[in-house]
Amino acid sequence: MNDTQYDFGMVGLGVMGRNLLLNMADHGFAVSGLDLDPVKALALENEADKGKPVKGTTIAEEFIQSLRKPRALMLLVPAGKPVDAAIASLLPYLEPGDIVIDGGNSYFPDTDRRDAALAEKGIHFFGMGISGGEKGARFGPSMMPGGDKQAYERLRPIFEAVAAKVNGEPCVTYLGNGSAGNYVKMVHNGIEYGIMQLIAETYDFLKRGLGLNDDALQQVFSSWNQTEVQSFLIEITGEILQKNDEATGQRLVNLISDRARQKGTGKWTSQNAMDLQVPLPTVDMAVTMRDMSAYKDERVQAAQQLGGINAASHSEADNLQLIDQLRQAFYFSMLITYAQGLVQLRIASQVYNYGLQLQEVAKIWRGGCIIRAACLEDIRQAFATNPDLSNLLLDPKIGESLLQRQADVRIIVKTAVDKGIPMPGLLASLSYFDAYRSATLPTNLIQAQRDYFGAHTYERIDQTGIFHTQWS
Amino acid sequence: MNDTQYDFGMVGLGVMGRNLLLNMADHGFAVSGLDLDPVKALALENEADKGKPVKGTTIAEEFIQSLRKPRALMLLVPAGKPVDAAIASLLPYLEPGDIVIDGGNSYFPDTDRRDAALAEKGIHFFGMGISGGEKGARFGPSMMPGGDKQAYERLRPIFEAVAAKVNGEPCVTYLGNGSAGNYVKMVHNGIEYGIMQLIAETYDFLKRGLGLNDDALQQVFSSWNQTEVQSFLIEITGEILQKNDEATGQRLVNLISDRARQKGTGKWTSQNAMDLQVPLPTVDMAVTMRDMSAYKDERVQAAQQLGGINAASHSEADNLQLIDQLRQAFYFSMLITYAQGLVQLRIASQVYNYGLQLQEVAKIWRGGCIIRAACLEDIRQAFATNPDLSNLLLDPKIGESLLQRQADVRIIVKTAVDKGIPMPGLLASLSYFDAYRSATLPTNLIQAQRDYFGAHTYERIDQTGIFHTQWS
Repeated sequence: MNDTQYDFGMVGLGVMGRNLLLNMADHGFAVSGLDLDPVKALALENEADKGKPVKGTTIAEEFIQSLRKPRALMLLVPAGKPVDAAIASLLPYLEPGDIVIDGGNSYFPDTDRRDAALAEKGIHFFGMGISGGEKGARFGPSMMPGGDKQAYERLRPIFEAVAAKVNGEPCVTYLGNGSAGNYVKMVHNGIEYGIMQLIAETYDFLKRGLGLNDDALQQVFSSWNQTEVQSFLIEITGEILQKNDEATGQRLVNLISDRARQKGTGKWTSQNAMDLQVPLPTVDMAVTMRDMSAYKDERVQAAQQLGGINAASHSEADNLQLIDQLRQAFYFSMLITYAQGLVQLRIASQVYNYGLQLQEVAKIWRGGCIIRAACLEDIRQAFATNPDLSNLLLDPKIGESLLQRQADVRIIVKTAVDKGIPMPGLLASLSYFDAYRSATLPTNLIQAQRDYFGAHTYERIDQTGIFHTQWS
Repeated sequence: MNDTQYDFGMVGLGVMGRNLLLNMADHGFAVSGLDLDPVKALALENEADKGKPVKGTTIAEEFIQSLRKPRALMLLVPAGKPVDAAIASLLPYLEPGDIVIDGGNSYFPDTDRRDAALAEKGIHFFGMGISGGEKGARFGPSMMPGGDKQAYERLRPIFEAVAAKVNGEPCVTYLGNGSAGNYVKMVHNGIEYGIMQLIAETYDFLKRGLGLNDDALQQVFSSWNQTEVQSFLIEITGEILQKNDEATGQRLVNLISDRARQKGTGKWTSQNAMDLQVPLPTVDMAVTMRDMSAYKDERVQAAQQLGGINAASHSEADNLQLIDQLRQAFYFSMLITYAQGLVQLRIASQVYNYGLQLQEVAKIWRGGCIIRAACLEDIRQAFATNPDLSNLLLDPKIGESLLQRQADVRIIVKTAVDKGIPMPGLLASLSYFDAYRSATLPTNLIQAQRDYFGAHTYERIDQTGIFHTQWS
């Protein structure tokens, strides 16, 4: 093959980068990859089907020269300095008209900064979040591009070919201006944190609260995946819970440390929601509980000093009913988590001029990505019916789904509180629901307190203007 | 009076700045103030007792020249650019050895930046949080200085004279290096957000949940201030709830808009806690609920579509019992809020090398500041007994206080959940307690999920090392 004929280039040949290139090769594109690690560059060629135009190299100049002009290449390297370093190393070889895509989880202000810097050199830059993990990259991810629309249009055939499909529609579409792609992916990950926390709480309720054994736990999640909570994360939970450790024969999950790690996207989502004044309590609690998990030694000591859970047992029939109510509670709080994240996208779109259409976001989240779930079709329909919908809770169908389940949610919360099972994600989701449907909140008292001690002034409900009172 | 004999200068003669100078004048110090607004400069002189050495001016050079050398002056201007602008305008007149104190709520990284910039010119800079509002500034605030210790020592007599006193001890002490003063004040404000949210929830429970009328509401808070929850914020709540609007004769609080405002310190506290991986759920929920309060129109619509609270009435005796349990729940969650904030200070002290002693922090919070409360003496004692205490929950006496109240907390949470009263701060506090005393959390499942879809690896409880599994 002529060395200047490759359609697409990848910088960073970790498993995600390799798999995405192999996916492209499957769809007939000639692909070239760069990694400073020769083992990874070689792995790319070895994993490709023989005869397919797949090239790996460790030399930046050779990589760039292998690409058809105007060039299209993606960076899949860790967020932060590695992205800047990769751009700097390639820049001497790039030419005006080339397209550089950041496919990683970059923090969105970095994307805006890089976009501006590369635009000065005539290079098209856009950020594109990619979700789906290794397997998604290989066989169909969800991709969230934003930024330079013309550049995206040139690459659309490649991305639509490799993306996951739902009802024949690809899980990729141009989302909006500037850093919209990275932003949407960030919020996707925030929602992912929220749902993972909710599943962990559900698992805890079943295990510590109801005393289910390993087999029963696995059966609950596997069976749930046939219901309205059907989703990638529930599906893999069922698979995880049946996996045995080869050495010990025990369930592997029971041998895994409970110190949960994070790479920052959930934290960024919560922190930015606070900047935008968007309530995101379920994601906040998910971030908090990953942080809490790190205090292992203190928790062990506290368990000795402060006692543990009340594992009162229930009848078989009561257990079955609680498990059904737990599923309703999970579905309720999962919907609330999507609702919170989509409000954040709506407000961010206004503040950062992204021009997002939430119907499109829901559409490309239906397949390929980590938060894909049956309910995303209902969510897509809600925004298709009303593109200006302020909050999913106000959609009649979603609202009805929540109202049908609120009694069960309250039973599960009360049961968890009685038992001492920490379910902060579920509790925060219910608090969100109860606060959102409060025409009047008690925050008038907070305004009075602020005016009392700090002369911060207040507004009134019966007059316009700004008021201050000498309270004491 | 000779124009170069003033002991202390203030830049920014808003009510806080004026009151702090008048407080110093009461204690025999000659004070000088600068404000570009002649009305404020004049107000300072008019408010001072005749014959006391209190001078106001609108001219920077005149102000600086009025101060005894080496000069000591404080900035009390809004955080952010106004602080930099004030420093820039004064710098031409300052000399090596002069002391500049930032007494506002500056974001702590700004303090470190300014400290470094002024140190190059030989000027001592330190950040000192001040709490107590107008009245505190006038008659005794709590002050939280950090940074240049030698500079602080020179001014110690002034600050100790004007600070609030508890058992004869001044509520001011040198706290630590760098931006320690602003940082401690930031966390003080985060705790303040948390406690104010908890009081608002309590008020909501009494009002919407139990149907208490205005008189009964006021009586509850006034009587509570004679109990273990005694604190400035409970005290002023009682006063607020009895204040009538002069025009309408109604209780003023009922006429105040429920859109709560914020100036950012609570948000910074939560965002920084996430950076430090410190769980701060009660403060997170307080920030979230201030944000939620702004969505007024949506909440009114949601109340119509999603229904409201269940205000089932109780017998008089049940009401009295619930009110007592509510007080226990409030005290429980107030202690948990202090615990969260003090963990943040402990970790921040390690990360930023502040060298904080939490016993000293609790000591100066006992009087003068907005979060002063009877329980701070218990908290001080906990750290006096064990300076290395990781978390207040592990102190035997505090732990016992929590355990005594946990049954009541659970009853209040369940009652609120039944009624649909949003109490996210209380729920988050209980979740914190239940999670902290969980020797094992379900976050092992989150690690398994992360490894399943993202090959993020995991640790095991039975072997050291990093593991990855091909799950499917």
